[in-house]
Amino acid sequence: MNNLELIKEISITSPEKIVLLVIDGLGGLPDPKTGKTELETARIPNLDALAARGICGLSDPIAPGITPGSGPGHLALFGYDPISCNIGRGVLEAVGIDIELKPGDVAARGNFCTVNEKGIITDRRAGRISNEKCAELCQLLDGTSIDGVDIKVYPVREHRFVAVFHGDNLIANVTESDPSQTGVAPLKITALSPEAGRLADIANRFAAKAKALLSSHHPANMILLRGFAGKPSFLTMQEIYKLNPLAIAVYPMYRGLARLVGMKVARTGDTLEGEFATLKENYKNYDFFFLHVKWTDTAGEDSDFARKVKVLEQIDAALPILTGLEPDVLVITGDHSTPAIFGGHSWHPVPVLICSKYCRTDSVKKFSEPAFLAGGLGRISATQIMPLAMANARKLTKFGA
Amino acid sequence: MNNLELIKEISITSPEKIVLLVIDGLGGLPDPKTGKTELETARIPNLDALAARGICGLSDPIAPGITPGSGPGHLALFGYDPISCNIGRGVLEAVGIDIELKPGDVAARGNFCTVNEKGIITDRRAGRISNEKCAELCQLLDGTSIDGVDIKVYPVREHRFVAVFHGDNLIANVTESDPSQTGVAPLKITALSPEAGRLADIANRFAAKAKALLSSHHPANMILLRGFAGKPSFLTMQEIYKLNPLAIAVYPMYRGLARLVGMKVARTGDTLEGEFATLKENYKNYDFFFLHVKWTDTAGEDSDFARKVKVLEQIDAALPILTGLEPDVLVITGDHSTPAIFGGHSWHPVPVLICSKYCRTDSVKKFSEPAFLAGGLGRISATQIMPLAMANARKLTKFGA
Repeated sequence: MNNLELIKEISITSPEKIVLLVIDGLGGLPDPKTGKTELETARIPNLDALAARGICGLSDPIAPGITPGSGPGHLALFGYDPISCNIGRGVLEAVGIDIELKPGDVAARGNFCTVNEKGIITDRRAGRISNEKCAELCQLLDGTSIDGVDIKVYPVREHRFVAVFHGDNLIANVTESDPSQTGVAPLKITALSPEAGRLADIANRFAAKAKALLSSHHPANMILLRGFAGKPSFLTMQEIYKLNPLAIAVYPMYRGLARLVGMKVARTGDTLEGEFATLKENYKNYDFFFLHVKWTDTAGEDSDFARKVKVLEQIDAALPILTGLEPDVLVITGDHSTPAIFGGHSWHPVPVLICSKYCRTDSVKKFSEPAFLAGGLGRISATQIMPLAMANARKLTKFGA
Repeated sequence: MNNLELIKEISITSPEKIVLLVIDGLGGLPDPKTGKTELETARIPNLDALAARGICGLSDPIAPGITPGSGPGHLALFGYDPISCNIGRGVLEAVGIDIELKPGDVAARGNFCTVNEKGIITDRRAGRISNEKCAELCQLLDGTSIDGVDIKVYPVREHRFVAVFHGDNLIANVTESDPSQTGVAPLKITALSPEAGRLADIANRFAAKAKALLSSHHPANMILLRGFAGKPSFLTMQEIYKLNPLAIAVYPMYRGLARLVGMKVARTGDTLEGEFATLKENYKNYDFFFLHVKWTDTAGEDSDFARKVKVLEQIDAALPILTGLEPDVLVITGDHSTPAIFGGHSWHPVPVLICSKYCRTDSVKKFSEPAFLAGGLGRISATQIMPLAMANARKLTKFGA
């Protein structure tokens, strides 16, 4: 029995409400000039007060040293083993533009590319055509039907699109047509296992059809497909935790990830305040809320220490809207660290705070990486956060008699 | 997917250099008279300064309570699961005398013993013959060839030797001929699975031939064989980490362990200073260095607290040669604890320090077991040290998108 099966067996519904606030890229590294991390630099009295009330610690999203992408980082926060529950690239790309996949669907990432009269690739990105051109060409390819499989084509940005194959018996275990280099023809897509033969055949026929449809659209006169992936069939959060969960996120990627584990997705605005307002509006109707704040990560990715500090202060200022709802269990953490001095996602453990009537508080008074080192949670795996949240919400019964 | 497979998938080469300094038997226990461990007693200003700069913690070589031998202790440090990647006794004995095994080779530990005229063992150690006698008798047996299998015989010490069987289809799944008692005849070696029949047959014929060759060499007139083991086929560190690794070690056992995971082995002297000089000479040509210092363990095994303290001070004094090279990532740890008051390897967690630009330092200022308890690494498994070193050297890409 793995951990989720155990939780599924002992989870129960209860009136208690859980709010999981994910501050994307929350953890940081000290600014060499001051020796202080973004969290230590920011004035965040509300977060500090929560640290004093709650139990604190640090969590590894995947394992020590492993830097997670957004997919594995969030799956771990939702309690899923992020290694065995990996999400394919095509699905992640689809999810990132808010496409709702159905069971059995296969998604692939696509590029418009340029081929010469001999069919040899001369530009894998078709000169980075405009978003408008991309949308126009996607419309040309969209709705193709081959042997009972409907193929939907969605623009992403510039030369990039997503193709979704919808039909029976589509197994995504196929190779890519993108040779990752110019000077050669697109590769034939082949099945890596016998049952994937149907998808390989349809994908090749789709590529041929695209070539014909695009012939007069130089430089975007061919397509390349890669990252074929079927919609994963995870147990939903309803099944595992018996929760009625709602996701609130400005960016489509996070709404999509939440949908993959069964969450309902709220309509919300483009701002932090909008997200908190959405939480308040929906608070009565759900018992679990995943609230995702993106801008800390963006600032970290941009190596903008000061902006990351400012976003943290904005979050802190908005927090009373959330705490005013008095959730029975409040979890504040991130999906990974994005230290501004590192300029990208990193492997560093992420601060995690759990506030509840039963959390067994510790002596931590500051919301920061060094302060959380001494926290009562110690250093945990991110997959352990959901069981702890559930327990604090009295939503887990005893294991064994 | 296990952890090494994950690392293999996301590892990349980078110009950054990693130095892994293994101080054998590093961890200790307090001297009851002073209440201080060997590390707390030693004056080690350079190690203390590194503790202040780096991130510190304690690691379990295998699992809490498990005392490792040198083999599992080092495999764990190299990132291999020391339980599933166990090295057979024969191989460890061969490795311990610097024998380079080839794929398919099987090694066994051997004893010269005494049998009476009825073939009954009267002394399992042949009166502990001299090293010289052992070497002479090994020469007598060495180079035997049976059914296409060449058998090399290497002296170890006193009555002990190593036999290496080299040929096709040798599967080491066989019983031993050593009955572990006197008053009985050597046991017939039998196959524990059908495919091991060939090795069992050849080993029995080798024992019979040895009996004939040794008949006039009483008391060493027979051999006993045990610990048959094939050369393990681990993924190499080159394959997993894409590193170009060099091992520097005075004692053959550690050079051998490094070879088993694919490291190149440097020629070095017999002293600590010699080892550091070898590191300096080879620094340009590799990106990973395993530097092994033995004498802390020897002192601990000898229950010599003061000598272990002195060796720690010697290491500390030599450290500037290493730190002067400014490795991007410096890891200092041990393969296990060998507390002098315990007089042997122990299960106690081992201090571990990682220094790098991105290590996220903690408040630890002293290099010692109690100080490291508050370190930012917390308590980790020894197998997590390599992923952390790789991450700090920016040699691991993101897992998942």
